Amino acid sequence: MTSLEEAETEETVTCLHMTFYHPCQEEKMMFRCLNVLRREQVRADELAKFGRDSNICRYNLMDSRVSRIQFSLQFYRKLNSSELCFEIKNMSKKTKLFVGHTELGYLNKTDLPQKCIICFGEYQILAEVQEGESMDYFHTRLHLSDVPILQERRLPSPHPVPESGIYSAVPSQDRSPTETDENKS
Amino acid sequence: MTSLEEAETEETVTCLHMTFYHPCQEEKMMFRCLNVLRREQVRADELAKFGRDSNICRYNLMDSRVSRIQFSLQFYRKLNSSELCFEIKNMSKKTKLFVGHTELGYLNKTDLPQKCIICFGEYQILAEVQEGESMDYFHTRLHLSDVPILQERRLPSPHPVPESGIYSAVPSQDRSPTETDENKS
Repeated sequence: MTSLEEAETEETVTCLHMTFYHPCQEEKMMFRCLNVLRREQVRADELAKFGRDSNICRYNLMDSRVSRIQFSLQFYRKLNSSELCFEIKNMSKKTKLFVGHTELGYLNKTDLPQKCIICFGEYQILAEVQEGESMDYFHTRLHLSDVPILQERRLPSPHPVPESGIYSAVPSQDRSPTETDENKS
Repeated sequence: MTSLEEAETEETVTCLHMTFYHPCQEEKMMFRCLNVLRREQVRADELAKFGRDSNICRYNLMDSRVSRIQFSLQFYRKLNSSELCFEIKNMSKKTKLFVGHTELGYLNKTDLPQKCIICFGEYQILAEVQEGESMDYFHTRLHLSDVPILQERRLPSPHPVPESGIYSAVPSQDRSPTETDENKS
C-alpha cells in the first residue's frame, strides 16, 4: 500500500474568513500586524482574541482607539447537533459591538451567523464561516477590503430591504477574498 | 475627609462556590493542587479552566483519568440585562459532563444555573453562584465535601421527585462550605 492509501481520511477544517475594512486604512497602520491571507490554525480550546494588546490578543489591531481586547471568538458545538459554530463576545467597555442587527455591550455575547457584518467604531468586518468537520481546531483567514463593507442607503430605493438587513454587502467581485491581497490594500 | 469617605463605593464581586467530592478523595491526591477555601480572583476576560494540565488549567486536578482540560467556565453578561452569569463548556473528548440533567459532549456548552450539580466520571461538584456587581472580575472559592453530593435514590419514595432532579443535594449542614475545611477532608 502507498502512504496515501494508508493515511487516515483527512478531515475538513472549519475556516472563518474575516474581511476587514477601516476608512483610514490607506495609512496601513492598524492592520500591519495582521497575518493577511495566511490560514492560521487555532486550537478548539483557545479563545481567539482581537485587540490592541499583543500580549493577550492573537489578532492585533495597532490603533489607540481599539481596546486592549476588543472582542473574542470561541469555537463550540451546538447541543444535540454536530454543528460547529462560533460565538462572539464584546470585551470592550468603551465600544459597542454590532453583529448584524444585534448590539453587544461589554461582556455580551452572541452566535456568529454563517455570514454577517461585525462593526465597532469605524471598523467593519465581513465574517463568513466555511464549514468543516474537525473538532480539534479551526482556521482563520483574514482579508482586507479597499471598499466599505457596510453601504449606507442614502437614497430611497424602490427595492425592498434585503433579508440581510439595513446594509447591503459590497458586490462579490469587489470583496472576493482571492482578489484582495496585502499589496493592494 | 477620611480615606474611607474619599474611597470609591466598593462593588460586590460575583463569587462562584464549588464544592468538590470524589469517592477516593481519602487519598487526597486529586485535590492536592486546589487552593481550597481561598478566594481567587479571575479576570472577566479569562477562561477558568479545570483539568490535569497545570500549564493550561488554573484549577488543577491531579488524576490520570482527568482530561488535560476537563471543562472551562466563562463569565458573561446576558443580552439586554445586567445579569452576570457563567457558561460551562465540556473540553474533554473522552468524558461526558453533566450539568443538572443536561449532558454535554465535547465542545458543548450550557449556562450554569444559580445552583446546580456538575458531574464527570466519579467527580461531583456542587456549584453555587453568589451574585455580585463587578464586571471586571469574579471570585471562585473551592470547598471539599466528605460526603457525596449526588445521592442515589435506591428505595421507591412516596414523595415526588424534587424540582432539582433525580438527585437530592446533601443536607445543608453537611455540605455547608463554612463547615468543611482542608484538614477535615
